[in-house]
Amino acid sequence: MKITSAVVSVVLLATAQTAIGQLPAADVSRFTIKDFTFENGQTLPSAVVTYATRGRLNAAKDNAVLLPSPYAADLHAYDAFIGPGRTLDPNKHFLILTGMFGNGQSSSPSNTPAPHAGPDFPRVTIRDNVRATHQLVTEKLDITRLKAVVGSSMGAQQAYQWAVSYPDAMDSIVAICGNAKQYPFGVIRLEGSIAALKADSAWNNGRYTQPPVRGLRAFAMHYAAWSRSPTTFPRDMLDRMSDQQVDQFLRSLEAPALGMDANNVLSQAETWKRHDIGDTPSFNGDVEAALRSIKARVLLMPCRSDLYFPVADAEYEAKFLQHGELVVIESTAGHAAGGGADPQAVSFIDQKLRSMLE
Amino acid sequence: MKITSAVVSVVLLATAQTAIGQLPAADVSRFTIKDFTFENGQTLPSAVVTYATRGRLNAAKDNAVLLPSPYAADLHAYDAFIGPGRTLDPNKHFLILTGMFGNGQSSSPSNTPAPHAGPDFPRVTIRDNVRATHQLVTEKLDITRLKAVVGSSMGAQQAYQWAVSYPDAMDSIVAICGNAKQYPFGVIRLEGSIAALKADSAWNNGRYTQPPVRGLRAFAMHYAAWSRSPTTFPRDMLDRMSDQQVDQFLRSLEAPALGMDANNVLSQAETWKRHDIGDTPSFNGDVEAALRSIKARVLLMPCRSDLYFPVADAEYEAKFLQHGELVVIESTAGHAAGGGADPQAVSFIDQKLRSMLE
Repeated sequence: MKITSAVVSVVLLATAQTAIGQLPAADVSRFTIKDFTFENGQTLPSAVVTYATRGRLNAAKDNAVLLPSPYAADLHAYDAFIGPGRTLDPNKHFLILTGMFGNGQSSSPSNTPAPHAGPDFPRVTIRDNVRATHQLVTEKLDITRLKAVVGSSMGAQQAYQWAVSYPDAMDSIVAICGNAKQYPFGVIRLEGSIAALKADSAWNNGRYTQPPVRGLRAFAMHYAAWSRSPTTFPRDMLDRMSDQQVDQFLRSLEAPALGMDANNVLSQAETWKRHDIGDTPSFNGDVEAALRSIKARVLLMPCRSDLYFPVADAEYEAKFLQHGELVVIESTAGHAAGGGADPQAVSFIDQKLRSMLE
Repeated sequence: MKITSAVVSVVLLATAQTAIGQLPAADVSRFTIKDFTFENGQTLPSAVVTYATRGRLNAAKDNAVLLPSPYAADLHAYDAFIGPGRTLDPNKHFLILTGMFGNGQSSSPSNTPAPHAGPDFPRVTIRDNVRATHQLVTEKLDITRLKAVVGSSMGAQQAYQWAVSYPDAMDSIVAICGNAKQYPFGVIRLEGSIAALKADSAWNNGRYTQPPVRGLRAFAMHYAAWSRSPTTFPRDMLDRMSDQQVDQFLRSLEAPALGMDANNVLSQAETWKRHDIGDTPSFNGDVEAALRSIKARVLLMPCRSDLYFPVADAEYEAKFLQHGELVVIESTAGHAAGGGADPQAVSFIDQKLRSMLE
């Protein structure tokens, strides 16, 4: 099975500089876990985590870097950051790219048989993803300790959770445009995307026979603004367009979501909404205690113009880290800067990754 | 006819500190213009501008302050800023509060008979509102020169347009959390609210028989996040709530839009989306030339955390003003700070208004 471009990273919806497809398609591998029980108590008889690797694991098994996928993304999510000469160079590191539950390739509402299909798919947490990926890394790939877990957006949420759930499993984590907990503003923001999709009666509580196209369009339009920033677009960008041309431009922003499955994006949105490393067993909801427990070196890279993972939250989290460093990405691209939308930000992130990995 | 609380300012959706209803209900007056032709060429046989006044016009007729309503607001929109001891003191100034076309009280899709009802209502511009209000001020109230036009959000857009369309009609304008032109990011943001509402098939291209409730809920949820900021809500706000309680809280944010008429809020959203003082005849789309033409003193008050009228845009606009001053509202309340959601911001705005009006 080849990676397709059907699953397009939502953070890149509004950019023409999408990195998707820059690298040659890699074979998607499938790691199957029998009787995987999710935190909500539901068990899938056969849970699949899709992954791809680039480069080779060295003899000492100490050059593995895990890159868990962000929201609505496939295994190409980090293409902009990977390549010869970059820090994430497959000639130096063994890169492990994993797909989240719900992304349409790993076990998802869209590809799981009854009785767990569609809206009956288990409610997934970031911890569920991390536990499954941990099994992949330790059991299948036979790696005890990762050099790093590097993630952007929901990938950063997974990196954070790795460091809390498996404190001895990595040297460092890098959280780009992501957080340790989804704070209330983000919950309300995410609920806007969920409400926009569900406003389409064709959604039918997830039991649709045809895609809820209006809802998916509204969902994409939600992200078209949220994933960027007020400083992203030139002030005169629409000046020489007729009303009809402006409308065509706006409609073009809706197109990427039309290839998405509604239950899949809703599943991942619920995962995002509920993320809190403080809910890891033994921390009793105390996010600060969970942050203090992290042994790995932590590099936090929020983006100045990110509308949903503000710098202030990263500053708050950094206060509780034993070995934390906070470096702000000064980009006008908004959240999408963490997904490769801004070439200067890509270089900046690459450079800071180097200081962690080399 | 009494002012009802049915029309609730959307900028205040997410706040418990709503100012609506603080002042006693005032009688709504109606100013009727026969054969009012909108910029799009459509003519209403009888266009109505609703308004209320507070205080008395002095003999010199030089104490009148116009306060045009913001988005989805009634004549109570500025209640938080009005009262004895405040700068906007009815004992000193003659306050004229006006309602925009489409707000459900002035001529709107919801209250205009066929053939201009509902989706057949003329497409409205900010200039249409300003021209109609100018007729009210000059013909009905017999005022040649206003002391000031003070507006927040779409009220600020109207204040700006007043200064361009009628440069000798006021001493000063105050634009709080608003702009001279809707820049592209705001267009995309607004389109998100429009798409969320229209995702509901009950909307039926505006020819609904029952309110499109799902769409209105999604519309409200859009504003629940956008009208505030990532810094508005305490990070532990949802910590002690069950999943069910969080859901109840989120649903409560949707409630205010249920009293709104879909065609009305869509009409005003289109007005907002298309605003550009540069489109005033004789400026040929040149917003900078329009800004340079303003004779009045201008006080720009963007809010630091406003997600749709960023400080950067106000800084850009201020560069072209002959008599401009920019003062940033340092509030974490987001756009809603300009609507009275933050008591400290209300005091700060009051104090800066004083320097303009006294």
